[in-house]
Amino acid sequence: MSNYDIDTLKHRLRDFADKRDWNQFHSPKNLCMALGVEVAELSEHFQWLTETQSRNLPQDKLNEVATELADTLLYLIRLADQLDIDLLLAAHDKIEHNEQKYPVEKSRGNAKKYTEFSQ
Amino acid sequence: MSNYDIDTLKHRLRDFADKRDWNQFHSPKNLCMALGVEVAELSEHFQWLTETQSRNLPQDKLNEVATELADTLLYLIRLADQLDIDLLLAAHDKIEHNEQKYPVEKSRGNAKKYTEFSQ
Amino acid sequence: MSNYDIDTLKHRLRDFADKRDWNQFHSPKNLCMALGVEVAELSEHFQWLTETQSRNLPQDKLNEVATELADTLLYLIRLADQLDIDLLLAAHDKIEHNEQKYPVEKSRGNAKKYTEFSQ
Amino acid sequence: MSNYDIDTLKHRLRDFADKRDWNQFHSPKNLCMALGVEVAELSEHFQWLTETQSRNLPQDKLNEVATELADTLLYLIRLADQLDIDLLLAAHDKIEHNEQKYPVEKSRGNAKKYTEFSQ
Repeated sequence: MSNYDIDTLKHRLRDFADKRDWNQFHSPKNLCMALGVEVAELSEHFQWLTETQSRNLPQDKLNEVATELADTLLYLIRLADQLDIDLLLAAHDKIEHNEQKYPVEKSRGNAKKYTEFSQ
Repeated sequence: MSNYDIDTLKHRLRDFADKRDWNQFHSPKNLCMALGVEVAELSEHFQWLTETQSRNLPQDKLNEVATELADTLLYLIRLADQLDIDLLLAAHDKIEHNEQKYPVEKSRGNAKKYTEFSQ
Repeated sequence: MSNYDIDTLKHRLRDFADKRDWNQFHSPKNLCMALGVEVAELSEHFQWLTETQSRNLPQDKLNEVATELADTLLYLIRLADQLDIDLLLAAHDKIEHNEQKYPVEKSRGNAKKYTEFSQ
Repeated sequence: MSNYDIDTLKHRLRDFADKRDWNQFHSPKNLCMALGVEVAELSEHFQWLTETQSRNLPQDKLNEVATELADTLLYLIRLADQLDIDLLLAAHDKIEHNEQKYPVEKSRGNAKKYTEFSQ
């Protein structure tokens, strides 16, 4: 477990943007696009791999993937901050919601959405 | 600031997948695709808005956006966990790297990439 | 108007993959991921621009964007071919559908989805 | 082979947007975001499938996928039109380029990028 936390990163990103006068570029719309670009850079590492290969990346690939995961998290934190949304609270609420939406007995070994179960 | 943290969410997501026998679906490749889908659901809220409108979402839109941000974070945490990558450490390293890559005096008010500065 | 057509490109892409023994990589799932990566490469050109700037790209940017549009079309044609879907017929059916879903009198100057009109 | 072509669709989409006064929303930036959202809707169909399953979709899934492919093509045509780019010509040029970039003898059965071959 890392000693860093989301809140520290949020303030550091805020300071980073303030010093460079980049808030003008950091509209939620633009940050959302940038977030999508980072996830696609992540996808590039996986697109031609089998699922099994994706579970067994060599260390040099893992390091590259870690950098893309980092970029994704940073834009996500920045976007939530610009919208004044508490990211961790929202995630906590969502996982509670998911636990109810996908009851264990109906979901076991089954990737279908809950809506498809009840049809 | 929220009382929750990434590590707590990671363990809760692990438990969630274990109980439903969903690790078989949670290859890094699949989780990466799912992450991209979540970011696109976020994009849907912004695609026809002006940047100014995206900075001034009404409360009901903000609530919907918070749910999509939450889904994005949850898949991101899950993906990092499946790859055994420390997400917060990677993000911390990346912001250090960015601070050197985009020096304040060259970057102020300028969205160009550092590579473009030095050309 | 260009002298080329979708069908010619489809056959050429088929031949391209056959000669390189790349059908093994060209599952619809993988091609869909690759398509997403191409669209993100396109997004990179637009993410920090204003809408007005995106309407007035300089010629060198336009050339780069044209290449990304080309990649997107090529993967789209290849994906449709692997699924044995007639892309142009599907597009024709969809535009007919859209013309009914968004009646002129209700849609004029309004980006809301039709479902939102009738609420 | 379908009787429709890209040029017909381009003019029909232009007419569609003109009648609804939607050109104001159809900046290249916005259309690019919308294109990404459509590709993600396509990804939703594939994200939890194995590659083999993605090659063997049942007919009802194929119909849904065809609709998403159609939406993707329509936004792509519209985006190229707003940028005054000849999509088919660009695609033709790109496939010529790819044929040189990935020579058959070096690429057979190998998904690595050409840049990786020559290292």
